[in-house]
Amino acid sequence: MLLKTLGEDSLIESLKKFSGSHRRLLKGIGDDTSVSVQKDGSSLLVTTDILIEDVHFRTKSAPAYLLGRKALSVSLSDIAAMGGTPLFFLVSLALSPLTPGKFIDELYKGLDSVGRETGCVLGGGNVAKTPGPMMVSTTVIGEAPADEVVYRKGARQGDLIFITGTVGGSALGLKALSSRGKTPLSRLPWKKSVKSHLDPAPRLEAGRMLARARLATAMMDISDGVGLDLKRMCIESRKSAVIYLSSLPISDELKAYGRKTGKSPMVDFALTGGEDYELIFTSPEKNLRKISALSRKLNLPMTPVGKIMSQKKHERVITVLDEDGEPMELKKLGFEHY
Amino acid sequence: MLLKTLGEDSLIESLKKFSGSHRRLLKGIGDDTSVSVQKDGSSLLVTTDILIEDVHFRTKSAPAYLLGRKALSVSLSDIAAMGGTPLFFLVSLALSPLTPGKFIDELYKGLDSVGRETGCVLGGGNVAKTPGPMMVSTTVIGEAPADEVVYRKGARQGDLIFITGTVGGSALGLKALSSRGKTPLSRLPWKKSVKSHLDPAPRLEAGRMLARARLATAMMDISDGVGLDLKRMCIESRKSAVIYLSSLPISDELKAYGRKTGKSPMVDFALTGGEDYELIFTSPEKNLRKISALSRKLNLPMTPVGKIMSQKKHERVITVLDEDGEPMELKKLGFEHY
Repeated sequence: MLLKTLGEDSLIESLKKFSGSHRRLLKGIGDDTSVSVQKDGSSLLVTTDILIEDVHFRTKSAPAYLLGRKALSVSLSDIAAMGGTPLFFLVSLALSPLTPGKFIDELYKGLDSVGRETGCVLGGGNVAKTPGPMMVSTTVIGEAPADEVVYRKGARQGDLIFITGTVGGSALGLKALSSRGKTPLSRLPWKKSVKSHLDPAPRLEAGRMLARARLATAMMDISDGVGLDLKRMCIESRKSAVIYLSSLPISDELKAYGRKTGKSPMVDFALTGGEDYELIFTSPEKNLRKISALSRKLNLPMTPVGKIMSQKKHERVITVLDEDGEPMELKKLGFEHY
Repeated sequence: MLLKTLGEDSLIESLKKFSGSHRRLLKGIGDDTSVSVQKDGSSLLVTTDILIEDVHFRTKSAPAYLLGRKALSVSLSDIAAMGGTPLFFLVSLALSPLTPGKFIDELYKGLDSVGRETGCVLGGGNVAKTPGPMMVSTTVIGEAPADEVVYRKGARQGDLIFITGTVGGSALGLKALSSRGKTPLSRLPWKKSVKSHLDPAPRLEAGRMLARARLATAMMDISDGVGLDLKRMCIESRKSAVIYLSSLPISDELKAYGRKTGKSPMVDFALTGGEDYELIFTSPEKNLRKISALSRKLNLPMTPVGKIMSQKKHERVITVLDEDGEPMELKKLGFEHY
């Protein structure tokens, strides 16, 4: 079977048989980062991501500086999703021999700027020649107290599902970038959305504080869309979930875009758009007040969007309810890589 | 300036300015792995490598199983070069949607087999779609007691330079593979050399034991050729070195190849060939007997090939002496990636 037929999630499922056991490895395949035991008992978190030219970015739309920022931010987002603190990062580059030195310098300035903002330093890496598209791979090493690491697998029946910030902005930004023709970046409409696509902010503080206060039973970051990522969390937790479409938190720009086009942006942008790098987490209803307080403290919305249900055979994992409370028939739940 | 003009070593040198400081990071850019402090004081080693289709391997020559083995072995070789023990690894793949599932399965079987041989387990990773050449990136996490980590920077004037195993075999294997036409792998000449190219053995035990016995003042692995890698070690150690060309340890196959072609394989294969993944290390002369004993115990040659000298301005870092003790004029010292 070809990979495009198999699909990403089935591939990863099939690879779990290779996820060996080691007394020091607590979690291999199936979460935002690997989790292993440091010698003092605390948890080491390691995550790796790749951005590929013409798949994840276009050099025409993404200046090298912003590409560097995003490459590190998306991996930091995985550390945030475990409730961790980043320590340092490694960068592997595959570059054409014709890459200008200036481009590489700007790329590292971007990596470095996010590193400084988050207390995470460059610790090495690798450069290789490629005849094909450019590739930027980042590996971030972080840590957390062992009893504060938040996995995907911890969601419990009855838990509310929360999302930090807003979703769908990145997809609107991508749309603006894709159809911009010769308009310079600085004159594009939907500026905030373009920024959230090119330069997403990893939710490290929110992830760490939710973990420390033990407010999240399960957590992950939203990279491929709310629907698809929540489905992955539910599968790891052996649960199902209901999402209220109209509850999804969207930005003022996305609301304005909806009014302008006369079409609801809730499914194509907010539910399935992807690349928002917000956190999605679950928590029992009794924590609502504490979560509201944390949200105010961080000046970051934390919006309840649905509920975790028991897992029933032959029923779908994710049910999306429309404004009338009717289950929707959806073609897809998020961005499928294959 | 374009990358091909700048060159790999100058690029990496220029990137050192981004290598930030962090109380937990002992070594960033400039060694085989990053070295950081675990909470109990022991050292954490992290290394990342990329193999790119049509640059580092060809799917026609390298069956997926062997590609998986090599991808992990080359990163383990970096852990060996620090004197470390591997714990677990992550794999990032960039794959075409048309990749057969069977290929991926074989690739992971190869990774898994090396993992089992070395006590290193799969801990996660990432899969992304690419329109270009396939890419396999491995990240290995290992550790070592803090006072046993062997850096590139420790070579001292007067130290002897040793190489484990033999060198040049990988280059001969590559030559046999490149010119094989339709000859099946199993019928190729220079079988052992082909194996050492497609399936190199990381010298984990030798690296660990040299480190534990404190026999190596500096150590690294030979990936780009004895000459070029020793030059890198000398630069980090602020020293220069003399290599006796005729001392380089070569395999029986490479000797036979030399006799057959009537040309000496010492420069093009043994000195500059690259991808041998043997260890090169330095040690004071007084350790000669202990090193011989370890070599016998491991049944692995450890051959003295030269000497570390002081660093003098305006003189070359690496001097290669021919059989008459005369300095040679060489076009290159190893494989330059750009």
